[in-house]
Amino acid sequence: MQRYFLNERYVNQNQSFTLTEEDYHHAVRVMRMAVGDDCFLVFQNQCSIKAKITRIEADSVYLEEIEKEQAEKEMPVSVTIACGYPKGDKLEWIAQKGTELGMQALVGFPSKYAVAKWDDKKRVKKSIRLQKICKEAAEQAHRTMQPQVTLLSELDELVQKFKEYQTVLVAYEESAKKGEKSAFVQAITQCVQQEKVLIIFGPEGGFSKGEIDLFYQNGAIICGLGPRILRAETAPIYALSAMSYQWELLG
Amino acid sequence: MQRYFLNERYVNQNQSFTLTEEDYHHAVRVMRMAVGDDCFLVFQNQCSIKAKITRIEADSVYLEEIEKEQAEKEMPVSVTIACGYPKGDKLEWIAQKGTELGMQALVGFPSKYAVAKWDDKKRVKKSIRLQKICKEAAEQAHRTMQPQVTLLSELDELVQKFKEYQTVLVAYEESAKKGEKSAFVQAITQCVQQEKVLIIFGPEGGFSKGEIDLFYQNGAIICGLGPRILRAETAPIYALSAMSYQWELLG
Repeated sequence: MQRYFLNERYVNQNQSFTLTEEDYHHAVRVMRMAVGDDCFLVFQNQCSIKAKITRIEADSVYLEEIEKEQAEKEMPVSVTIACGYPKGDKLEWIAQKGTELGMQALVGFPSKYAVAKWDDKKRVKKSIRLQKICKEAAEQAHRTMQPQVTLLSELDELVQKFKEYQTVLVAYEESAKKGEKSAFVQAITQCVQQEKVLIIFGPEGGFSKGEIDLFYQNGAIICGLGPRILRAETAPIYALSAMSYQWELLG
Repeated sequence: MQRYFLNERYVNQNQSFTLTEEDYHHAVRVMRMAVGDDCFLVFQNQCSIKAKITRIEADSVYLEEIEKEQAEKEMPVSVTIACGYPKGDKLEWIAQKGTELGMQALVGFPSKYAVAKWDDKKRVKKSIRLQKICKEAAEQAHRTMQPQVTLLSELDELVQKFKEYQTVLVAYEESAKKGEKSAFVQAITQCVQQEKVLIIFGPEGGFSKGEIDLFYQNGAIICGLGPRILRAETAPIYALSAMSYQWELLG
């Protein structure tokens, strides 16, 4: 069933709900929904309901609540994925797959060995596009929130964000090559509910020794992700899948 | 360091090793390697060595062994990924990412709700392309084997293969929606070393009730993969990452 994200908070079941603009267009023109049809509505306070269309006017679809959506769709730990700017459309891809796999936020940052240079103009343009991809993927994956996208202009801004998180991890290929495999497991099995975790991934060229030192000196845990060498865009997907397995399936 | 897969078995360290044809071209023309340079050689019996170039001739690169490669790169359990033929180039993408994440074999099969129809001609063409993608991804990910690709013309052929595996799993969206989350964990935590596991994924349209019944009646375990709805190409990546985490990191 179709899901729509509303830019409002859910207060109580007597509220009336309205789809306008893009969502109106999607419901009426693309999905050809009619009075009596059901869909899910998702609110800014991570609440979601099943709703029925009661009236359709020239630019608004009116709905009323049928019932709350029960199942928990969000990870018990909030995970932010930070990626050194990769080449081409890889960040778009990470945005889509990361959203499906439960990430709460996506951060891009410049990194020494990154081939791609993301100037101000490119960041503004990409930011809009990435946010749209996250919204669509969140609807498709039945999420109750849309991951927020932040594209940084300096590596230092990333390091300054460390204090917002209880755990900061850095996926480092050299750790993987040396067979390091316990740091990631230790960190994620010790996370508690509602904790905020930041996990940082390098661009195609990996991290410089200086960058790793900077992260480490600011409290990050350097970890490997298994014995095979993963591409820049595959490593975040591995980490999110493993976290979901640990927290949501193993529990 | 570059890796080359040789179409021969490793016998002993006194063998001489030769790169020819495509690998010769890649080493000499693309990588511009010279006498004294090192690379990894990977053999059909899943053994890999570090080797040094001793001589380069008009159409052959000659190498000698320096040492065995020590680290275990392969999953302890052999995992075959089977996918209902998806749209566009999604199977190419699954081939690449699945190889990075450790799958041993990839099977494509026709499924009732698949939008894409893969006729004989398309299967032959795709098979060559998919095998090439697996080879390149295996080199990049430092694997010691190349996953084999098999594209089936009938669903029944897939069911007939069940007997080759100790465990057969089917990822089913309806199970995920109902909150089923223990079957996957139970199955993969009970796998033993060297066991062969087959895990089956539907195309974009999912499986029909009849297909699920057929799989179940032939001994497959129907399982969900967490609370969010994953796309056809994301589900195999989730499963492989979770398996790697369980078997290689939690161990």
